[in-house]
Amino acid sequence: MWVRVLGSAAGGGFPQWNCACPNCRAVRDGSRPCRPRTQSAIAVSGDYRKWFLFNASPDIRTQIEAFAALQPGGGRATPLRAVLLTDAEIDHTLGMLLLREAKSIELHATPAVQETLCDGTAVLRTLEAYCQVTWRPVVPGASVPLEGGLSYRAFNVPTSKLPRFTAGREQGRVVGYRLTDESSGRTVVYLPGVQELTAEVRAELDDCSCLLVDGTCWHDDELIRLGLARKTARDMGHLPIGDPGGSLEQLSPLPIERKIYIHINNTNPILLDDAPERRAVEQHGMEVAADGLEVRVA
Amino acid sequence: MWVRVLGSAAGGGFPQWNCACPNCRAVRDGSRPCRPRTQSAIAVSGDYRKWFLFNASPDIRTQIEAFAALQPGGGRATPLRAVLLTDAEIDHTLGMLLLREAKSIELHATPAVQETLCDGTAVLRTLEAYCQVTWRPVVPGASVPLEGGLSYRAFNVPTSKLPRFTAGREQGRVVGYRLTDESSGRTVVYLPGVQELTAEVRAELDDCSCLLVDGTCWHDDELIRLGLARKTARDMGHLPIGDPGGSLEQLSPLPIERKIYIHINNTNPILLDDAPERRAVEQHGMEVAADGLEVRVA
Repeated sequence: MWVRVLGSAAGGGFPQWNCACPNCRAVRDGSRPCRPRTQSAIAVSGDYRKWFLFNASPDIRTQIEAFAALQPGGGRATPLRAVLLTDAEIDHTLGMLLLREAKSIELHATPAVQETLCDGTAVLRTLEAYCQVTWRPVVPGASVPLEGGLSYRAFNVPTSKLPRFTAGREQGRVVGYRLTDESSGRTVVYLPGVQELTAEVRAELDDCSCLLVDGTCWHDDELIRLGLARKTARDMGHLPIGDPGGSLEQLSPLPIERKIYIHINNTNPILLDDAPERRAVEQHGMEVAADGLEVRVA
Repeated sequence: MWVRVLGSAAGGGFPQWNCACPNCRAVRDGSRPCRPRTQSAIAVSGDYRKWFLFNASPDIRTQIEAFAALQPGGGRATPLRAVLLTDAEIDHTLGMLLLREAKSIELHATPAVQETLCDGTAVLRTLEAYCQVTWRPVVPGASVPLEGGLSYRAFNVPTSKLPRFTAGREQGRVVGYRLTDESSGRTVVYLPGVQELTAEVRAELDDCSCLLVDGTCWHDDELIRLGLARKTARDMGHLPIGDPGGSLEQLSPLPIERKIYIHINNTNPILLDDAPERRAVEQHGMEVAADGLEVRVA
């Protein structure tokens, strides 16, 4: 199985259009070593021919043009087989409207996510005015085969983040995906948003070969310190990396071959190649994703 | 007054994610001389400090990062003063959702466009869940001052394109903008979508110094010939360039200093620098916009 990081930044990307925080300034003026990043999404394939998109970021045009394997071979036939969503956030779903020129789209999402996309942000209702959408309801715990020798199992990720749109259902607002290569039995877990590593969530990481995990903020109060927002990382549904009890402390001891931070906010110091926080991540055996990173799990 | 072309392609951009037409193949594999283009939008300023965005394309992140004058100076203060819309198309409006991190957005749009953005695509209703939007109703014929020494006058552009969302109002579904530099009195007309150069529309071009005009298709049946769609350019609200009675024949004799095609579809041969159609445009004294083109009218 191949996992291609199409985008590694959190919502807004890096730099964010209206942000002049130290990181965004550094990536614009080149004063510190760091690379721009588009908004988070991965593409996964069992055969390098049929690809599955996990989240559809607003940067999807740029992301497809940066990765030849996702480009159409002839006419308007594309290697993209389906879109699978972890939540209904704008930065994970708006890109679906950029796929509206497709004849049809297969969409895997929980009922809670589907409802928000219809009645909340209306992304799905609008998309359906342009092309046929086949909705496959995501049921946590169920194993679902995908073309090319893959299967997935979604799992519920509890969150106390206040829903911006209609309260809706509590279960399935956020899920993670556990992907299995059917020929080798090896697995990858995609978890770009997680507020708390509960026992249930940790159980889903058992025996996995590669984990792509929420790396939004270093500190819980990172945006407050910079005067950019009043919310903590946890308020926004994200466990910080570096604080005591943060994800670095909890995840680095796990016997997983590759543990990679993804969905990194523009304010997070790990974006700077020479930051002490980046060094701490690497010294603990974890990695920081960049756009274009490709992982083979076989 | 400065006009900066942020994006020069029609909806889908160039190349389009799922298109392998001869042009899209050429720009991906470099086999013909041509440049990639993002989806159409311009930024206009009277003082090079405060900028007004005409249409908000889904590529706006890339477009802002490619133009330092649109980037924030400090904190999260940006030089972008308002967004003005010519219609409610996805490729002209989806970018507003990428501006949702702003504290507030000033939006100029006709009632017909505003209605489609609320009740049709819901882009505006969703945006309002994130930030404050101040709607300034665009009234064709009225002169409206803008900060930095500019003013605009919108004019109705008749179209028979079938509305994809609720029938809504007939007037104001598409407008053009006539922008005036108040110190010199010189004007620019922005008209990225026009189905027919009626006498009323032509009257709006009188005395203008620079015209940015709909260059979507070369032939009316361009997409049909390529087997990519069943609609003509006119069905989609666009006057073709090269056909008898097309825009090249009608516009090239007009005494306007600079006449520039914008909103160019990925199938249009003028995108190829060495195409006979490109040569024809230039021999008739007109230009083909590329991303980053800057025009000063003073």
